[in-house]
Amino acid sequence: MSKKNSRRQFLKAGIAVSTGLAASNAVADDDPLITQKQTWNQELGSGVDERPYGMPSPFEVDVKRRSVPWLTADPVSSINFTPLHELDGIITPNGLCFERHHGGVAEYDPSYHRLMINGLVDKELVFTMEDIMRFPRENRTYFLECAANSGMEWRGSQLNGCQFTHGMIHNVMYTGVPLRSLLEEAGIKSNGKWLLAEGADASGMTRSIPMEKALDDCLVAFKMNGESLRPEQGYPLRLVVPGWEGNMWIKWLRRIEVGDQPWHHREETSKYTDLLEDGRARRFTWVMDAKSVITNPSPQAPILHSKGPTILSGVAWSGRGTIPRVDVTIDGGKNWNMARMSGPSFDKSMHRFYYEFDWNGSDLLVQSRAHDSTGYVQPTKDELRSIRGENSIYHNNGIQTWHINAKGVAENVEIS
Amino acid sequence: MSKKNSRRQFLKAGIAVSTGLAASNAVADDDPLITQKQTWNQELGSGVDERPYGMPSPFEVDVKRRSVPWLTADPVSSINFTPLHELDGIITPNGLCFERHHGGVAEYDPSYHRLMINGLVDKELVFTMEDIMRFPRENRTYFLECAANSGMEWRGSQLNGCQFTHGMIHNVMYTGVPLRSLLEEAGIKSNGKWLLAEGADASGMTRSIPMEKALDDCLVAFKMNGESLRPEQGYPLRLVVPGWEGNMWIKWLRRIEVGDQPWHHREETSKYTDLLEDGRARRFTWVMDAKSVITNPSPQAPILHSKGPTILSGVAWSGRGTIPRVDVTIDGGKNWNMARMSGPSFDKSMHRFYYEFDWNGSDLLVQSRAHDSTGYVQPTKDELRSIRGENSIYHNNGIQTWHINAKGVAENVEIS
Repeated sequence: MSKKNSRRQFLKAGIAVSTGLAASNAVADDDPLITQKQTWNQELGSGVDERPYGMPSPFEVDVKRRSVPWLTADPVSSINFTPLHELDGIITPNGLCFERHHGGVAEYDPSYHRLMINGLVDKELVFTMEDIMRFPRENRTYFLECAANSGMEWRGSQLNGCQFTHGMIHNVMYTGVPLRSLLEEAGIKSNGKWLLAEGADASGMTRSIPMEKALDDCLVAFKMNGESLRPEQGYPLRLVVPGWEGNMWIKWLRRIEVGDQPWHHREETSKYTDLLEDGRARRFTWVMDAKSVITNPSPQAPILHSKGPTILSGVAWSGRGTIPRVDVTIDGGKNWNMARMSGPSFDKSMHRFYYEFDWNGSDLLVQSRAHDSTGYVQPTKDELRSIRGENSIYHNNGIQTWHINAKGVAENVEIS
Repeated sequence: MSKKNSRRQFLKAGIAVSTGLAASNAVADDDPLITQKQTWNQELGSGVDERPYGMPSPFEVDVKRRSVPWLTADPVSSINFTPLHELDGIITPNGLCFERHHGGVAEYDPSYHRLMINGLVDKELVFTMEDIMRFPRENRTYFLECAANSGMEWRGSQLNGCQFTHGMIHNVMYTGVPLRSLLEEAGIKSNGKWLLAEGADASGMTRSIPMEKALDDCLVAFKMNGESLRPEQGYPLRLVVPGWEGNMWIKWLRRIEVGDQPWHHREETSKYTDLLEDGRARRFTWVMDAKSVITNPSPQAPILHSKGPTILSGVAWSGRGTIPRVDVTIDGGKNWNMARMSGPSFDKSMHRFYYEFDWNGSDLLVQSRAHDSTGYVQPTKDELRSIRGENSIYHNNGIQTWHINAKGVAENVEIS
């Protein structure tokens, strides 16, 4: 009997759900349109020739990348954001992976693309795409996060939606050749300690990468989630630098130079360095520290029922390993609860967590706090500010707070 | 010194590659067009507002689902095929997941969609999409294979391309609610031993499913690879029946009836049964046995170089577990070599394998043979025929052979 009761616990709330539906997007069960709209069993749908490459349902038109016009001077050197609040699991579909480029999207014909390796090598080499695909390849899933993700949060909550505060991240299964294999093919001279990776696009993007990382886990990738890279992600070839800031993952990769010291180019001096309170700048802050965010509910994704069983969902990641644990609070940090992790736990990959609770219908202050496999715990924004000040726009991995009101509407807030 | 030699082994072949490029799609290194076409560093590309939902490069236009017009009477009750030869890793991108429907693609407004559970339950229930999303959900990756995949191969090799012989499969990470949770919410009566799952489309698709499977690992899924289901995959709701034939994965899922015996509907009597040599039919042959295929090279994907380092790539899967091992032969079965597995190994999910070898440029007969985690080994087509005859169109998991000629061109053949 007690087992039966426990089995019914959810049902009682389920009935409550039905009476609360007026506030939601769903249509009430007695709406005559339900029958009227459900005519598909009387009509043949479209055939198999109509979608050589398929697209989402027209009802999903709001599930899209969004940009913020005032954020940058020009859309060809700008950002759009992954709609994290519309996604689930850990894979970001290719069509929704945020874009960041500095000279617009180059559209390359892969038959004309070449990758050169030069500098301090035994033999300088030029590879065609087909040459590269003759090297043994690997399949690995990694998050890519822009160093500036959550950058607007340094000076307080400014953007109302996790798409904008945390959407400069995606998580993709790559297929590529270990960079190590190509470097060993060229033969690294004993004084070769650094690489310069160069993209073929108009921005002339270049970044210095230490040899130790290059030989560790970097990939020269040509596929994402099974298919060829998308143009905005560097088609036909990009560098994958697992766990490190996205700017180093050079797209439209055309050259790797081996040198004995870093190059100190624009994107690692004027940009992608962290300006501290005293005017000094942290440099070479490559690793993306552990971070998490609650994606549902969030400002773009309110709770649609009045109370009862409620699912809080979010993502967490670390550039230093896996995420064995995420804590969640619904009362602004008075009580922390361990979230349920669901889905694969890969090294330097996004992790999905859930926290299921019985909402009493009153205001909530929700936060998540990631623990990574090194033992590091995601800090508060104030803890970060006390060390780094508020001048930087990069590497803000502080804890995010959403206020949820009794109507289920969420807002970006800060609490001390 | 010997280490250095080993390091250079691949390079020697690499030089050979460059001289052999005339036979490939890549452009020779001295082609003046290389410089002429590489103008992207002089031109700004397109900005971040132009692709709210991104698409593949125009150079990937041939990477698409394809149908075979003569295979079925009408495209609204037909099939198109996943281009396996163009993919890598284990994830099938949503836009390229093969389609099979019996009454065309229904395009549902999710706010009007309902899932009913009725029959031998304590309380009949109707769920909105939002109700379903209030149940704890899970993220799992599964292959979906149509029972008729490779069906044309029963009577000998007929279709020239792994897209057509093996492309009725895809592999996706799903987000959904365990079917068990919804059934327990309704309360299954003690004589409830079977389910009838019903789709809302014009075909009136229904299949009987034993309760044991329903309570084991079935999901009621609403996301695939992170985003909402695609219309052709049952948006907004489909049944996931891991490891079992695709026809049971009811799309546009609108009703689950609990009963005490199977329903013997059309799709489990006239169709989706295996006609044997003596006229009897095997029924309820739900599990998809271990199977594999070499995707590269294959008839649609020739080898583009003349000899030297060559990568053979393929996929393997089993409805009974994982694939710890795949064997590969390049000489028609005289010698078998263990393939290298790469990428995640999930239960009832596609696995990726590679076999790297030094091609001497002569004819090849390539085959792959999957071993699953139960110890089962993929049989030859002749072994299957000796037991089941050639009348069936379903459940052909026999070993596939491609003949590769000296020009790298592949053809679908059979060897005894």
